[in-house]
Amino acid sequence: MHRSLSAIAHVSLYGDKMYIVLMAGGIGTRFWPRSRASLPKQMLNIFGERSMLQMTYDRIKELTSTDKILVITSSELKDSVSKQLPEIPKKNIIAEPFGRNTAPCIGLAGAIIQSREKNNEIMIVLPSDHLIKDVEKFRNTLITAAKYIPERDCLITIGIKPAYPETGYGYIQKYSEIASTFNRSIYKVKTFAEKPNLETAKRFLESGDFLWNSGMFIWSVKSIMDEFDEHQPELAEGLSFLKEKVDTPQMDEAIYDVYSKTKSISIDYGIMEAAKNVCVIEADFGWNDVGSWEAVYNISEKDSKGNAVQAPEKVLLNAKNNYIFSSKKLVAAVDVEDLVVVETDDALLICRKEESQKVKDVVDNLRRKKFDKYL
Amino acid sequence: MHRSLSAIAHVSLYGDKMYIVLMAGGIGTRFWPRSRASLPKQMLNIFGERSMLQMTYDRIKELTSTDKILVITSSELKDSVSKQLPEIPKKNIIAEPFGRNTAPCIGLAGAIIQSREKNNEIMIVLPSDHLIKDVEKFRNTLITAAKYIPERDCLITIGIKPAYPETGYGYIQKYSEIASTFNRSIYKVKTFAEKPNLETAKRFLESGDFLWNSGMFIWSVKSIMDEFDEHQPELAEGLSFLKEKVDTPQMDEAIYDVYSKTKSISIDYGIMEAAKNVCVIEADFGWNDVGSWEAVYNISEKDSKGNAVQAPEKVLLNAKNNYIFSSKKLVAAVDVEDLVVVETDDALLICRKEESQKVKDVVDNLRRKKFDKYL
Repeated sequence: MHRSLSAIAHVSLYGDKMYIVLMAGGIGTRFWPRSRASLPKQMLNIFGERSMLQMTYDRIKELTSTDKILVITSSELKDSVSKQLPEIPKKNIIAEPFGRNTAPCIGLAGAIIQSREKNNEIMIVLPSDHLIKDVEKFRNTLITAAKYIPERDCLITIGIKPAYPETGYGYIQKYSEIASTFNRSIYKVKTFAEKPNLETAKRFLESGDFLWNSGMFIWSVKSIMDEFDEHQPELAEGLSFLKEKVDTPQMDEAIYDVYSKTKSISIDYGIMEAAKNVCVIEADFGWNDVGSWEAVYNISEKDSKGNAVQAPEKVLLNAKNNYIFSSKKLVAAVDVEDLVVVETDDALLICRKEESQKVKDVVDNLRRKKFDKYL
Repeated sequence: MHRSLSAIAHVSLYGDKMYIVLMAGGIGTRFWPRSRASLPKQMLNIFGERSMLQMTYDRIKELTSTDKILVITSSELKDSVSKQLPEIPKKNIIAEPFGRNTAPCIGLAGAIIQSREKNNEIMIVLPSDHLIKDVEKFRNTLITAAKYIPERDCLITIGIKPAYPETGYGYIQKYSEIASTFNRSIYKVKTFAEKPNLETAKRFLESGDFLWNSGMFIWSVKSIMDEFDEHQPELAEGLSFLKEKVDTPQMDEAIYDVYSKTKSISIDYGIMEAAKNVCVIEADFGWNDVGSWEAVYNISEKDSKGNAVQAPEKVLLNAKNNYIFSSKKLVAAVDVEDLVVVETDDALLICRKEESQKVKDVVDNLRRKKFDKYL
């Protein structure tokens, strides 16, 4: 049934109506020393040949035509994005002059779509640095949500069934079910919750009401832009002016103007928490935002001793549960456990795996010391 | 008093009589990945600018003239030794065609000295891969021993007062004191003991009779060659033939012949244990044979958290008691303890510090896999 749904959906129903926006502006310090200012998480190929951005594109490319895929990235990354995604028309790769979190980014995408299209388009917003195991299920979730929009014009978020009390994710509290379609339930949203502490996360899990906030959205472009008008009027005004400049020589300047005047604000905080017609579609497609080297380890293939080692050659003697990456060197690990070791051309990280989120502190430290070449 | 002794000794007493033989043929796998077949321990500069061989030379160069310093090394290392010690005449840098442990090496040196000198020379034999803290005391120990030889023509070993029950060293059991000169006691030797287990090492320490075997010797060249005649007659016969060829075009061939026919045997096992007139001079000059990365760590300078880090740049966050070496990279260590991390151009070692002697197993493993380029 899923298969046939997928087929119907992308051929006839949303084949040329759906816009897909990939947010690819992240600066990602958590994968230092592999991630750098010029090579953040979404641009890295941590899990094989393709980068996470490319994998994100691969997952959705069959859902619409390439001229309806927008990538919003930073000016520093624009060229690399073009290189990684040669299929996407250049005019669809949009550079933010500086990061202002997700609200301005999504507003910018909405303004571009409204400028280019007369109809009220379906717009899917996706981060480009997440992993998804079951791509078929993922696509069907997007299609199910997109199909539901014309029925009841709401802002749909994707909520992931939590598997354990993760403290690194935001949560969405669901409320009454408003639809059940193709085996998927859509609920009204009660609240958005920030990253909880462990105790709260456990309560969330037990309650059965909370879902992980995946940061993925499906809505009509008119609905979301109306919400900008209501809840972020200054930004909306800038975007409204910007619409006139899309695809003109003044476009970059207009974007710069909007970004200079807006504050940094997330779509969750700036729009979703205030908006009335917010729904969540419950999903379960093996989602992981891979927020640390430990998370990379957890989803990597391991040997019988639990080691995930990527290196040209290796010698492991009584080594257990380590994540080791070295692109060019023989790695020898002796009697070590639960380590993250990552070696690049100019840096070497050795970190207790459980504490791998502290890599951010290393980057902060380097920034304070102005060791720019390592950033 | 020591200072004046040193002055007298090297100017007048042994200034041109003493031969010093540096044994520098070791293949040293314990400092992999820094030590390689082409760059064993003695050739490495683990502790600063100078290699351990150069430091050994620096310690003794004032005790005699350079034409009386012999370096016995392997054919692979001969050129590197020449480069490291340009002061030593080329004809004094002798290549063994293959390693046969210390007995043939010392016999070869003895044969060369006997061939070149008419008199019965004093001969000091020193490993070239040990560290010595108190160089003044060390030199005075050598001089004291050398001064004693004409009095009673014995084979003197240097025994180090043990500081703790080390299981990685051989031991010498002392017996009756036969001389006390310049604050140093010389004893007859009862036995040589192999590396003990911990229990035995503790007993050795408690008894007060056992000294660490430093592998350093002082004797007259005639005495030691007589012992070869008695206890290693086949080898002695080869050496006797070799004497005729020293400094002739046939020298290398003659050495090859001797080495091809002799078995691998240590001077301790092959000569000292059997010889009658063996003495030990008790010494305490901060000796360390630096047998592992852990030993390197123990004598390295450390920061307040006990980290010894050699790297162009470093960021240490809650890292304790680690030894880290990287010649070119920034090193970041987070929440790790008691590790040895050594990074070279083609290899990366991560090892629990306590188990750093297992680096030998890594090398064995590489050898079995025929990963020659890493050896």
